[in-house]
Amino acid sequence: MRSRAIPEATVARLPIYLRALLDLAETQRALTVSSEELARLAGVNAAKVRKDLSYLGSYGTRGVGYDIEYLLYQITRELGLTQDWPTAIVGIGNLGRALASYKGFSERGFRIDALFDNSSEAVGEEVGGLIVRHLDELKDCVAESGLCIGIIATPPTSAQEVAEHFVDAGIKSILNFAPAMVNVPPDVNVRKVDLSIELQILSFYQQRTQAIAAAREANRRLNLPSA
Amino acid sequence: MRSRAIPEATVARLPIYLRALLDLAETQRALTVSSEELARLAGVNAAKVRKDLSYLGSYGTRGVGYDIEYLLYQITRELGLTQDWPTAIVGIGNLGRALASYKGFSERGFRIDALFDNSSEAVGEEVGGLIVRHLDELKDCVAESGLCIGIIATPPTSAQEVAEHFVDAGIKSILNFAPAMVNVPPDVNVRKVDLSIELQILSFYQQRTQAIAAAREANRRLNLPSA
Repeated sequence: MRSRAIPEATVARLPIYLRALLDLAETQRALTVSSEELARLAGVNAAKVRKDLSYLGSYGTRGVGYDIEYLLYQITRELGLTQDWPTAIVGIGNLGRALASYKGFSERGFRIDALFDNSSEAVGEEVGGLIVRHLDELKDCVAESGLCIGIIATPPTSAQEVAEHFVDAGIKSILNFAPAMVNVPPDVNVRKVDLSIELQILSFYQQRTQAIAAAREANRRLNLPSA
Repeated sequence: MRSRAIPEATVARLPIYLRALLDLAETQRALTVSSEELARLAGVNAAKVRKDLSYLGSYGTRGVGYDIEYLLYQITRELGLTQDWPTAIVGIGNLGRALASYKGFSERGFRIDALFDNSSEAVGEEVGGLIVRHLDELKDCVAESGLCIGIIATPPTSAQEVAEHFVDAGIKSILNFAPAMVNVPPDVNVRKVDLSIELQILSFYQQRTQAIAAAREANRRLNLPSA
């Protein structure tokens, strides 16, 4: 199972399916879901859902759909969410503090284990039940406690330096919240979170909403019959 | 041009192309890009890039590719980023403060115009150059200053209430950072930002990295010849 290559684009959609399935199970107490319904919730087409889930060995039952509980099990296992990935945050400003106590992480099984900063104000402070440590302690801390995911929550100008600290400490997975590109060796995975992406998508629809409202208004002024 | 329907999935990819193109233009000073290169940077396939860009009326030139500056112009116009969308944040805790000064927003032309909270500690405080106002003033403020995008940065338990405040004030575009679903009327667009999605994708690759390292270690212990 593990050795079969799952396409990168499919991996990126699994968390979206997971969120939709959890919502169906918890809010609507559903037991099964059709590929059409899951597709609608995830914003893709049904053929893509069926193809994606086939990589997990799930094919659904005609007329019944997919068993939600089993799909949840398969997706969490495939994403490695059944394992524990000790995670560190570097940069304990507003964003780092928000991430340290973000409920959406713990809901998905991610536990923030260590916080680092290099400012004397932050070091020693308690944030979300953890004492902020100095960035110089990162390497020892990784060696001792097996931290394996590093989150960059600094301003953009410090992002590259923090990435280098992570790489030097042996961390292979980095999540970068700073709006800056970082360069790392090829055996290190970096994912970038751009908080403005959804705002840009929203802008597209807001523009369309305003265009329709303007057209309606023009129509009203011209005293034309409404459609 | 405007009236042609662009598929939802294409709209969602435009900000990814925009980010890649800006990086090519600014960091690498490139003037043109092939669909293959843009596809690699955006993590999709080249045929999809060509199809997506064809909705904008861009077809590229064989052997040359796409003109980056013109593509940037087309995408920013299509996403409505050439217009000004006054934006308000409700919930001035750590996340709200981080978003109020997030450089990634201003880089994409989004200006945070107003901050609201309902706690007496936050109201009246200056954050990122703005005075935090009481949530009760939201409706008047929307009417006066034409705020049109609302960001929810509260804990999950307050998200629905804030969404209702936005709807009541006439806001049609909501960005929800709280890990909770909100219900709004059908003429209101809500986009949800789930900060854990990239962490889940990273977990998948971290798991694979560890599996490979474990296999290497087993191989070493068995004293088998390396591949």
